[in-house]
Amino acid sequence: MIRPFRVGIAGLGTVGASVIQILDRQNRTVAQRGGRPVQVVGVSARDRAKDRGFDLSRFTWFDDPLALARSEEVDCVVELIGGADGTAHEVVRTALSLGKHVVTANKALLAKHGSALASLAEEKGVSLAFEASVAGGIPVIKTLREALPGNRVSRLYGILNGTCNYILSRMELEGLTFAECLKDAQRLGYAEADPTFDVEGFDTAHKLAILTSLAFGSKIDAEAIYVEGISSIAPLDLAMAHELGFRIKLLGVAERTETGIEQRVHPTMVPKTSSIAQVMGVTNAVTIDADAVKELTLIGPGAGGDATASAVVADIADVAGGKAGTTFGRPVADLEAAPRAPMQRHEGGYYIRLTVHDRPGVAAGVATRMAEADISLESILQKRSEMAATKDPHGRSGAPVPLVLITYAATEASIRSALDKISRDGLIAEPPQVIRIERE
Amino acid sequence: MIRPFRVGIAGLGTVGASVIQILDRQNRTVAQRGGRPVQVVGVSARDRAKDRGFDLSRFTWFDDPLALARSEEVDCVVELIGGADGTAHEVVRTALSLGKHVVTANKALLAKHGSALASLAEEKGVSLAFEASVAGGIPVIKTLREALPGNRVSRLYGILNGTCNYILSRMELEGLTFAECLKDAQRLGYAEADPTFDVEGFDTAHKLAILTSLAFGSKIDAEAIYVEGISSIAPLDLAMAHELGFRIKLLGVAERTETGIEQRVHPTMVPKTSSIAQVMGVTNAVTIDADAVKELTLIGPGAGGDATASAVVADIADVAGGKAGTTFGRPVADLEAAPRAPMQRHEGGYYIRLTVHDRPGVAAGVATRMAEADISLESILQKRSEMAATKDPHGRSGAPVPLVLITYAATEASIRSALDKISRDGLIAEPPQVIRIERE
Repeated sequence: MIRPFRVGIAGLGTVGASVIQILDRQNRTVAQRGGRPVQVVGVSARDRAKDRGFDLSRFTWFDDPLALARSEEVDCVVELIGGADGTAHEVVRTALSLGKHVVTANKALLAKHGSALASLAEEKGVSLAFEASVAGGIPVIKTLREALPGNRVSRLYGILNGTCNYILSRMELEGLTFAECLKDAQRLGYAEADPTFDVEGFDTAHKLAILTSLAFGSKIDAEAIYVEGISSIAPLDLAMAHELGFRIKLLGVAERTETGIEQRVHPTMVPKTSSIAQVMGVTNAVTIDADAVKELTLIGPGAGGDATASAVVADIADVAGGKAGTTFGRPVADLEAAPRAPMQRHEGGYYIRLTVHDRPGVAAGVATRMAEADISLESILQKRSEMAATKDPHGRSGAPVPLVLITYAATEASIRSALDKISRDGLIAEPPQVIRIERE
Repeated sequence: MIRPFRVGIAGLGTVGASVIQILDRQNRTVAQRGGRPVQVVGVSARDRAKDRGFDLSRFTWFDDPLALARSEEVDCVVELIGGADGTAHEVVRTALSLGKHVVTANKALLAKHGSALASLAEEKGVSLAFEASVAGGIPVIKTLREALPGNRVSRLYGILNGTCNYILSRMELEGLTFAECLKDAQRLGYAEADPTFDVEGFDTAHKLAILTSLAFGSKIDAEAIYVEGISSIAPLDLAMAHELGFRIKLLGVAERTETGIEQRVHPTMVPKTSSIAQVMGVTNAVTIDADAVKELTLIGPGAGGDATASAVVADIADVAGGKAGTTFGRPVADLEAAPRAPMQRHEGGYYIRLTVHDRPGVAAGVATRMAEADISLESILQKRSEMAATKDPHGRSGAPVPLVLITYAATEASIRSALDKISRDGLIAEPPQVIRIERE
């Protein structure tokens, strides 16, 4: 008889509990894929007494997750504790050091310590697998690591945070404000009490850092990522996007440019007809542009206990069967320290919403500053409110009105410089809203 | 030094040529993934003199692909000849019998001989990989085989034939007839001179047979598939679909039902808001419904030399690294001979377009027959042409007019029985158009 592959699970939240239940119900399929039976032997969590809906007595209980990581009973530690440092980091490092495989869903850990942990895994000849760390149940890690060796990836972009996509979807469909939708997201459990990590783009940035490394064969470089969240998006921006044929999504984008690898997280205008624009609610999606395969899009659940556990279980089966390969799809020594492309050099289309004083010459003044910075405009939309239009014979109220510009490809630096001048000219009443456009 | 993994390529059409070029340019990445260098050592094709844009002199030339399959120089045979039987089958069988790995893009071969070849591969301890056989560059084989062991799949459906999707997309967007779009597809090289295989759904059926086996762990059973093509689709159906909030796609659908596994290929009404409805032109897509991951959709190029070669190269790297696993994700002995769910037992919504005689009582007669068969109607649309409406005070011309019914879930048998009666009642002037509805 083949010796079973013995798994220890550190962290029994919704994902951990679901991993146990899935391994029970899919035992045969997992064994077929892994080439041997998979057996959970030990578990560790904060609260032993908590009702998880199933019996824990058949597993060895560890009060200390580090003891589980050190246990000789365990071939593979599944780390579901979370956090870039502290216990999670120690558990993973300990397990790898002792020659145990590790499966984790911990994006923060990977984004911060990925290269060091991959080196350790390599040195010890064990696997470090992390499909569940990005985009929940979508097999995007496997796709980037295994399905595209024949491709040179030029760009990837994704909706990697369900909270943000839920908020933007509801703002768009119901004309609500960011604050209203955030409150609902919190009520439904889609957002944390402190939502900063999600809505300000940091969660997306961690995930993007991991995908970038896999896609470009580069060392993880989370600090290089330009990050902007969605809290500044106004219902008016969504209405304008609709009118202009776009939707607004919080994207993580990684792109190979002439200066290096550009990594950025920001609200983005995407064409309404693109695959990624169709992705609404808490769903995640990733599009990969590559030379041979052209465009590949994967859409699925980005979170949730079962979907994340599905990814964990796939990793366990791969590791049990010796099929996980190197952590980032190549030896750590082969990962390049790719030059960072600075955000100021980013080139693309821009949506710019100015709140201008409603008086003669303002549009001309704005257009002149744009022209001076060598920025070509694809369209200009001025919206005058109906109330304002009744105030004087020219329809001017003197009150600030929105002026929306769509530019052709321009650099971030030139856009920023033009907007500074427009601001100094006294043409605008509020800081400008700037949303980058990403085309297919 | 590690011995290179020696590949022989049988068939040098656009895919074969692209495999050689990709292995040249991505050599390092493929070696990193495969754990050793990959080297094309031999090639075989019909015409040695043909200009393929690169030099063949560095490879051993085989006039006879069987000689290549037998060559001791070769560790892995890449079969790109095509066809369910004849040379392709012999090449694959010979290579496997001699303990060589096989990578193939041949869906017809797999659909017909998949189980037997998988047994042979298993017996000889070698891999048989076929990512390129379904949906070109989309890693759907890998996803079903490796990413979902924690899932019980309930349904999968896909746009698996680019020719059909191109034709339906153009019919919809430009209001053209099937014949007009087919001609364009042929001119652009998207359709063969004899398009039967594509437009009548047989190509989709081969691919569906393969996906079904992977998704449900069942033996390939291509003969169980109900197949209907797109040649009967009229511009009026697309216009009605639009009005009713649907798009028409040729789908391959495999579903676990109470009676067994249902496999069917037919034009299908899908909700306009679904991910799969967004897929236009020659692009392919597959959606997988499963218990843990809920819904997963993969979208990408279904054909083309480079996209298909991308899948072939990924297989080569997996096989070189010993990571391909068993052919269908489990030992052949574990594949179930799942009961076939007969089409008559299919249950779902239906779009029915009748061409009825325009006289009193016809709509009532139709509705009565539907009610007798226990079919509930979600909507009824009667379109009377403007010309007809001028003929008499009641707007009736006596000439046949379309009457469209959308049903709630009903069985194929009850629909067929009701339509037979309606036909025998003399209510319709033409055979009915029936299009099944597939909801998310």
